[in-house]
Amino acid sequence: MDNRPIGVFDSGIGGLTVLKEIVEQLPGEDIVYFGDTARIPYGTRSKETVVKYVMESFNFLMKKNIKAIVIACNTASALAMEEAQEKFNIPIIGVIEPGAKAAVAATRNNTIGIIGTEGTINSNSYQKYIRKQLPSAEIIGVACPLFVQIVEEGWENSDVAYLTAQKYLLELKEHNIDTLVLGCTHYPALRYTITKVMGEKVKLVNPAYETAKLTKNILKEQGLLNEKIDGGICKYYVSDDPEKFKRVGGNLIRRQIESVEKVDLSE
Amino acid sequence: MDNRPIGVFDSGIGGLTVLKEIVEQLPGEDIVYFGDTARIPYGTRSKETVVKYVMESFNFLMKKNIKAIVIACNTASALAMEEAQEKFNIPIIGVIEPGAKAAVAATRNNTIGIIGTEGTINSNSYQKYIRKQLPSAEIIGVACPLFVQIVEEGWENSDVAYLTAQKYLLELKEHNIDTLVLGCTHYPALRYTITKVMGEKVKLVNPAYETAKLTKNILKEQGLLNEKIDGGICKYYVSDDPEKFKRVGGNLIRRQIESVEKVDLSE
Repeated sequence: MDNRPIGVFDSGIGGLTVLKEIVEQLPGEDIVYFGDTARIPYGTRSKETVVKYVMESFNFLMKKNIKAIVIACNTASALAMEEAQEKFNIPIIGVIEPGAKAAVAATRNNTIGIIGTEGTINSNSYQKYIRKQLPSAEIIGVACPLFVQIVEEGWENSDVAYLTAQKYLLELKEHNIDTLVLGCTHYPALRYTITKVMGEKVKLVNPAYETAKLTKNILKEQGLLNEKIDGGICKYYVSDDPEKFKRVGGNLIRRQIESVEKVDLSE
Repeated sequence: MDNRPIGVFDSGIGGLTVLKEIVEQLPGEDIVYFGDTARIPYGTRSKETVVKYVMESFNFLMKKNIKAIVIACNTASALAMEEAQEKFNIPIIGVIEPGAKAAVAATRNNTIGIIGTEGTINSNSYQKYIRKQLPSAEIIGVACPLFVQIVEEGWENSDVAYLTAQKYLLELKEHNIDTLVLGCTHYPALRYTITKVMGEKVKLVNPAYETAKLTKNILKEQGLLNEKIDGGICKYYVSDDPEKFKRVGGNLIRRQIESVEKVDLSE
């Protein structure tokens, strides 16, 4: 048993969808969430910059006496996972590997689509993990930069969302994919619109759910579960604008976020 | 006469539209452009954070022996102008004041719309400057966060752009504005789509043009013009991803951007 909290890291607000899955599957665990909202979005930045930001964020989380870190951000998982695992001596769990595994389990025609930020798609991380398990897979990755802001505007079921999805997803339809990985924490909010464009037969994979499952397994295997079975406490830290985090984040996971503290990473 | 370069500062790429106007109106001036692309976008951040980023960026520009700074970014002009003018002892020119002045000159029915980022609109900066000159003005500000990414995708004349503009601009149409300030450096690229939604009679004010005019006047008054009358040289610095800056920036101002250097502000 280990009653220290789990650290959940994201570039901003989207990681709350991963936190929500962890709370559902591990209701006794305490969680320290850090969203690097002062430097969001990571999705359009270079690998070098993302690695630097992740290291600074993890240094902050380590001060909170955590027992493991979940990287909720797809871009950070794609670009900084290896560097983080080398530097920090606790389990570090990203969203890419569990998402890729679920996609391989779901596909029947071995044709898988991945949507995410520019950083995630260009890193080829999902592609590599999928191909490791299913070498014959045809994989098509498409960056959808407008999706995040459409969700943050609350426009996920609008005409704008539908037309944008039609533009971004056209290539995936043409390739006749049967499985689509929602490779960015905001995208599950667009589930309905994406299904309207892709059709009911395309299976949508939400890495958040798979990541929470993997986290539970790893903590169990390593004897790190909390002795409480429910009543875990979540603490939230951000690097900018706590009020916006409460408002947009509360809307994203449809629950009230009580108190959020602003921290300055340069201190 | 003063042959030192002019510094042009922006949160990223959009400031190139201001640089382009300066080059056209002051073709002999050398320019040092700095785009803080590692920390873009400023538009959704708090005032405190924007002021900090602007100060760090100006410290970098000052090392380049500049004689004046143009803040091309509307958000930075709105949130950090006073702080910058207090700290640095050279002329600092923002885009808000000249944009507001042009709007006052253009309106006939004293009903003016402003569109920009959340930061610019919520700061009420345009509103304050307009009201100083035209106390009876009715001013309606609307934040349009999706517009920047629509332009960066190259979708400025698409259905997505048109529907998004319809959503954002509805309130401005209902108020029957006759003048609209394009209060973000990316928005002039949406000129055609915005006119399609608002109608031909609404005058669009581009603060970039007005800012270049004001810059010329200030340099002249203070005896700071370059002795060359053309052949000015532009140097570009960014805090992340020079290749993307060349590609998206070149597209935005429709000219090739030769060499871009990456700098680390924390050094």
